Amino acid sequence: MNQVITIGREFGSGGRELGHKLAQHLGIAYYDKQILSEIVDKTDFSREYVQEVVENKLTYMMPPSASIGMSIGNEYQIQQMQKIVKAQTDVIREMAGKSSCVIVGRCADYILRETQDIRLFRLFVYADMQSRIRRCMERAPEGEHYTEKEMEKHIRKVDKNRANYYSDFTLQKWGDKSCYDICINTTSMNIDVMVPYLAKLFED
Amino acid sequence: MNQVITIGREFGSGGRELGHKLAQHLGIAYYDKQILSEIVDKTDFSREYVQEVVENKLTYMMPPSASIGMSIGNEYQIQQMQKIVKAQTDVIREMAGKSSCVIVGRCADYILRETQDIRLFRLFVYADMQSRIRRCMERAPEGEHYTEKEMEKHIRKVDKNRANYYSDFTLQKWGDKSCYDICINTTSMNIDVMVPYLAKLFED
Repeated sequence: MNQVITIGREFGSGGRELGHKLAQHLGIAYYDKQILSEIVDKTDFSREYVQEVVENKLTYMMPPSASIGMSIGNEYQIQQMQKIVKAQTDVIREMAGKSSCVIVGRCADYILRETQDIRLFRLFVYADMQSRIRRCMERAPEGEHYTEKEMEKHIRKVDKNRANYYSDFTLQKWGDKSCYDICINTTSMNIDVMVPYLAKLFED
Repeated sequence: MNQVITIGREFGSGGRELGHKLAQHLGIAYYDKQILSEIVDKTDFSREYVQEVVENKLTYMMPPSASIGMSIGNEYQIQQMQKIVKAQTDVIREMAGKSSCVIVGRCADYILRETQDIRLFRLFVYADMQSRIRRCMERAPEGEHYTEKEMEKHIRKVDKNRANYYSDFTLQKWGDKSCYDICINTTSMNIDVMVPYLAKLFED
């Protein structure tokens, strides 16, 4: 039976690193940005457009009956959004069906919640704001020069987008521990130390 | 350096079992009901009175400045409550200072949050309502015959009391993942399988 570990994560908490290292340790596939590429392949939309929708804009494109608050999307936009939602669902189900894997983000925990014939573990990775700011600043790409305050603003914005997308897609609350099997606070935990023992939890 | 694992837990989630087995596996002390006995020893109150305060009544005894909403406690009650809070704090600090240990409940995560010279891990154990009802009914003491509905009501009541006591004592939200290092959902996880690997996380 395929074992599928989904990872939700606060921005800057090290969730991707943890997911990647877990996959390496377990010798299983790892999916992250590839999900976006496959959504692009399955639809006729540009990468930029898909990225914009899945990272920022789902709410505005939802039909009023499916979202809380007002919708400013027209019928054409709604159809496009539905194509992306369907492609995202198909891509993630295909990944889970192919082999054991780690899938980061993209509501995979929700999409796979009732999938038969897989063993699903849903992780959520988080950390306090100070350690996330530090982590992001240490790993900033060349040319990015945020102050601490700017970085905090950026982190909050990314998290807000993730939370909105997740709640629009799942009608659940992003980061609510009842949606996950294990929630891990990386503030004072070393990811390298944790990975082998976490992996053991999933092996048995 | 003493290693101290604190366990917050939803009623019926198996948090005590997990804590007890972790302590056994690690060969360290385990404190649960003993905390209450030691609070009784440190104060001149009866066991029943202390139990009533720590399980149900802290809010009503708090001075208005320290709690949200109205207080109906008089000065004498407030002094008694403060004695219990102080005894609880002292007992838990002494336990953590004595040797490595697992401490279940009693706001130990908060009391020890800034204690020097210990290594603190804060766990929170939870599960969905159905599995908690099942667990409680399977383990019901002789003579207890709750229906499922009654059991759910009982679980919610105990949790509400825990949440109130925790938030009165700590001004934090009980079960909010930011207060813990790892949150574990036991709904579909086997406690016996998890314990050795969780223990490893704390050993390194």
